[in-house]
Amino acid sequence: MTGDAERHRAKMEKRKAAQDAEVAEKTIEKGLLIVNTGPGKGKTTAALGLMLRMLGRGRRVACVQFIKGGWDTGEKHAFESFGDRVAWHTLGEGFTWETQDRARDVAACEHAWAKAVELMADPSLGLLVLDELNIALRYDYLDLESVVAALRARRPDLHVVVTGRNAKPPLIEAADLVTEMGSVKHHFSAGVKAQEGIEF
Amino acid sequence: MTGDAERHRAKMEKRKAAQDAEVAEKTIEKGLLIVNTGPGKGKTTAALGLMLRMLGRGRRVACVQFIKGGWDTGEKHAFESFGDRVAWHTLGEGFTWETQDRARDVAACEHAWAKAVELMADPSLGLLVLDELNIALRYDYLDLESVVAALRARRPDLHVVVTGRNAKPPLIEAADLVTEMGSVKHHFSAGVKAQEGIEF
Repeated sequence: MTGDAERHRAKMEKRKAAQDAEVAEKTIEKGLLIVNTGPGKGKTTAALGLMLRMLGRGRRVACVQFIKGGWDTGEKHAFESFGDRVAWHTLGEGFTWETQDRARDVAACEHAWAKAVELMADPSLGLLVLDELNIALRYDYLDLESVVAALRARRPDLHVVVTGRNAKPPLIEAADLVTEMGSVKHHFSAGVKAQEGIEF
Repeated sequence: MTGDAERHRAKMEKRKAAQDAEVAEKTIEKGLLIVNTGPGKGKTTAALGLMLRMLGRGRRVACVQFIKGGWDTGEKHAFESFGDRVAWHTLGEGFTWETQDRARDVAACEHAWAKAVELMADPSLGLLVLDELNIALRYDYLDLESVVAALRARRPDLHVVVTGRNAKPPLIEAADLVTEMGSVKHHFSAGVKAQEGIEF
């Protein structure tokens, strides 16, 4: 072995020992409250990735969409391959500038939240995605305090993912894992349109 | 309609007009070079979500893993439902502190890159994920200039997603869409371990 290779090995051996010690410290298992927020892409798509991963572990998963309306999306088709192991509820009526009717937005969000509460009570579920719930909270379409209380009171092994920009501080406070997706560069700025299989 | 509701409607009508005009300006369709970087979670899971979305559009997808070794992951199992519409190549040998052998890391990355080049030439592919390619580039396991040149020279309708921390500036320069995942809060800091269906 050359000197360089030997130095690399020794350095990495040390790093592995540190890494192993760090992993060994983490012993708690619990259902996580995960928040994907920020102006960048990937908030919902990362939640879809987690649904897929959980399906691969043989569990059931569900998604409630609070804002997005009855669009035809790729993910909806793809999840059909998993039959009744995926429950998908598109209960939004579109963005608030599409409906132009606040009372209707509030009613749709209340309906979606009732479905979320019902799903949280289902013991067979491994992961629940509450897509764009942050938007519903931001516009006060739902009562923040009671939503956060219900999320905190969920059964201890249920993982929940909440997506949407501008997550409210009390939700961040309650969460185990919060990621801020930041937009560094966006193809829309270069005149590229939303594309099938990527944006929808 | 009450005054409040009418004001809301008028405001949202205006916003919708602005939104529609903005959407109408974007007319270009092209295969995107997407980079998911940053220290936060969701880089790979968002790429998995895009694979799922593209599968839902009836296209074929592929993933090459540059660093991650032969771990058993939920996503690998889940993608089995899509048969040969998903090509999955785990060609890494684990993190560099696992192998402790730089020459072996370089060989694994070169092998993975050769597979990526082969896949880019496959006209039936809609989306190619190059998982943790940023790590291979960061440690100079691959030549940055030739990797970026090959990505730029890909066929115009192929979408490619590159993941991993510390994306190199020339890659960001070449990309259409770059998202920085920032870590706001992480359950590992609270002693919670990596969990099945979430982390793997």
